[in-house]
Amino acid sequence: MLDKARERRKQGLLVAEGLIEVGMALGAGYGIEHLLYDPNLTSEADLQALLQYQPTATSKLIEVSNPVMEKIAYRANVPNVVAVLQIPDRPLADFKTDPKPLILVLETVEKPGNLGAILRTADAAGVNAVLLCDPQTDWYNPNVIRASLGAVFTVPTFTATASEALEWLKEQHITIFATHLEASFPYFECDFSAAVAFVMGTEADGISEFWVNAAQKRVIIPMYGRVDSMNVSVSTAILLFEALRQRKM
Amino acid sequence: MLDKARERRKQGLLVAEGLIEVGMALGAGYGIEHLLYDPNLTSEADLQALLQYQPTATSKLIEVSNPVMEKIAYRANVPNVVAVLQIPDRPLADFKTDPKPLILVLETVEKPGNLGAILRTADAAGVNAVLLCDPQTDWYNPNVIRASLGAVFTVPTFTATASEALEWLKEQHITIFATHLEASFPYFECDFSAAVAFVMGTEADGISEFWVNAAQKRVIIPMYGRVDSMNVSVSTAILLFEALRQRKM
Repeated sequence: MLDKARERRKQGLLVAEGLIEVGMALGAGYGIEHLLYDPNLTSEADLQALLQYQPTATSKLIEVSNPVMEKIAYRANVPNVVAVLQIPDRPLADFKTDPKPLILVLETVEKPGNLGAILRTADAAGVNAVLLCDPQTDWYNPNVIRASLGAVFTVPTFTATASEALEWLKEQHITIFATHLEASFPYFECDFSAAVAFVMGTEADGISEFWVNAAQKRVIIPMYGRVDSMNVSVSTAILLFEALRQRKM
Repeated sequence: MLDKARERRKQGLLVAEGLIEVGMALGAGYGIEHLLYDPNLTSEADLQALLQYQPTATSKLIEVSNPVMEKIAYRANVPNVVAVLQIPDRPLADFKTDPKPLILVLETVEKPGNLGAILRTADAAGVNAVLLCDPQTDWYNPNVIRASLGAVFTVPTFTATASEALEWLKEQHITIFATHLEASFPYFECDFSAAVAFVMGTEADGISEFWVNAAQKRVIIPMYGRVDSMNVSVSTAILLFEALRQRKM
């Protein structure tokens, strides 16, 4: 059931699988609804390590057998632990960030695998927030969680309409850089040392008029190849790490 | 048959599917062995556009029906054109490059999808050569071709043993930078403006002792996240585009 976005939204719950991911989610403060474990695959020490984050959650532990775990699990590799977790209620409007944050704005990234890869990059770059605008997928799609290697839990993520995202960025005095192929500055000539947000579009269509107009500056990553497009997680990494370089990491 | 690496090696042939990829391969000089096309999906103009590269190849054209194409094709989407192409015999020892080349050395990248993604990045960065050392996959694995979007044909690629690759790099006076987590310099403090090669290892194990010892300098991409590893195509992009930035693209 919770492998469907609609059901996740309705119930406010998500599913995380495996010790590492569940541990990352709990460490990031996600509340436990249920914690299912296979005693043949999970040691007492592992369980205690998970419960350190929420010591009162012992009542939510459910021991299950391997065949049951196999039925519950989304992935092909049957996990040792499956957690049903509470999706945090985190309105963007309430979010306060650093004075010089590094923000990522994503528009309609279609593929969960791409979204996961971007989150992994955002995690590595220590991004302050990732805003997903008018999404076609949600953060807790099983393939997003998997491709992000759990970074979806460690990076502050928000879902918003484009207008809400823009309003928040303006309130926080964050300069918006949009990746665009026309009338653009090479990214390495831009100053990313203050508060910045990068707006990344789809590989096929780029970004929408809304963000082209909202941006203070349009940037381009010059390319020398024949294929003429870059994977969005790769172009995101190039911009984020150039910002970090300018800030001397 | 040619979907198996052993058969490709034995016959010296590869298979490319679809107008765009076949066009990229022919444009890069790959010789045609057979060119199969479905007349219901391929216009006369498209065929002529392909044959412009090898006008004498008309005798190699084979018209096939959709059901036959479906049997031949590797991919789920049945292509309009399938080409059997000759794998070029291109020994690394004979390859002469620019005075200030940008070279990529890959060690045992296991996943064809990762190899394809790296090639796409290498294409965008205008890399002079990609050397694949002691590979577990070959360049013309169908999934490499697909993930590279045809960049496998546009980027000069070589397969070699680690010793052959090192010998060639030394002969060409190319400085070797190895990505490594120990005793390393932050990549943005290094000078990549002369002839450089980046050695990229696997995400799990990094690079081998051979390349750690062979490298003039060990570089690291500092990370701020919790996941603690980066996709190899992403880290490759960060290094290549920093080199381009230093050379002012």
